[in-house]
Amino acid sequence: MQPAFRQRVPPGDHLPRRVCEHCGFVDYVNPRVVVGAVATWGERLLLCRRAIEPRRGYWTVPAGFLEQGETCEEGAAREAHEEAGAALDIGPLLALYSVARIGQVHLFYRAWLRTPDVHPGLESLEVALVAWDQVPWAELAFPSVEWALHAFHDVRGQSTFAPRGNPAGDRGDFPVGWHGQAP
Amino acid sequence: MQPAFRQRVPPGDHLPRRVCEHCGFVDYVNPRVVVGAVATWGERLLLCRRAIEPRRGYWTVPAGFLEQGETCEEGAAREAHEEAGAALDIGPLLALYSVARIGQVHLFYRAWLRTPDVHPGLESLEVALVAWDQVPWAELAFPSVEWALHAFHDVRGQSTFAPRGNPAGDRGDFPVGWHGQAP
Repeated sequence: MQPAFRQRVPPGDHLPRRVCEHCGFVDYVNPRVVVGAVATWGERLLLCRRAIEPRRGYWTVPAGFLEQGETCEEGAAREAHEEAGAALDIGPLLALYSVARIGQVHLFYRAWLRTPDVHPGLESLEVALVAWDQVPWAELAFPSVEWALHAFHDVRGQSTFAPRGNPAGDRGDFPVGWHGQAP
Repeated sequence: MQPAFRQRVPPGDHLPRRVCEHCGFVDYVNPRVVVGAVATWGERLLLCRRAIEPRRGYWTVPAGFLEQGETCEEGAAREAHEEAGAALDIGPLLALYSVARIGQVHLFYRAWLRTPDVHPGLESLEVALVAWDQVPWAELAFPSVEWALHAFHDVRGQSTFAPRGNPAGDRGDFPVGWHGQAP
């Protein structure tokens, strides 16, 4: 049997939610948190080429959905371990982006690799430590990855900074034909 | 009919999730985002006394769950409007707290009231604009409210600051008998 959802306002609520006609289950949907890291070894940035959809074959910094029971920093470190076999020291919050259309909040931390020993996990085709002028801007997976890399560059050498937010007026939509913009 | 959930690992997944025995629905649960604001009118802070559980009768800054389709800043402004009838200008991110045990991420923004015209919404018993030395520390609703107020005080007069995080070693648990700590 499959769930049979209809949109209706549950008792005591004020917004319509998906309610299963079979079992009465209310599917509360709230935005999800993606945690990631812009991590360096010396001057080189840790990037992963995605082995999974969406955007298979494109490059990203390690990032993924925060899970129950972990802090944001723990989640960012776990994703880097899963996707790139990397051990990170997580530093300050680099950026917070709202991707409202798809109900996501993206948090990127500044981070440092403890060793240069990295290898692709199950969700990565390859991993690399690349210099700033070798970032594959036209092959980045998502706008927020591009933004986070620029945020890293913006705050270089600053010990105290405010985390970056969405570019003005940009809600993180993913235009058809989008590809990353070089600085 | 009620949902009949059992914990099992859905096909293609790697963690156990709640799956309904009637309809096969997989109840993916990820941490939820709470957005709030430490808002001032002149030197006074906007506080609300909660009309709903949990912690009915205790004081908080306006805050609540981020909804689909809105940015974090929009969510923080909406909550202040709903709970206190307040119109806010949302400023920089003041604090990000992980409350891992209950699967929440709390974001508090520094904000400014556009006018001192505030009134309790349905979820508030009363609202008040209080001076720092009149904050009811022992009657605050949650640890993160206390932390956010201290974060506000810490960064006073600074134009650029890093958002505050959890106090060292504190995962946001809610000890039995907890009450807010004065500075």
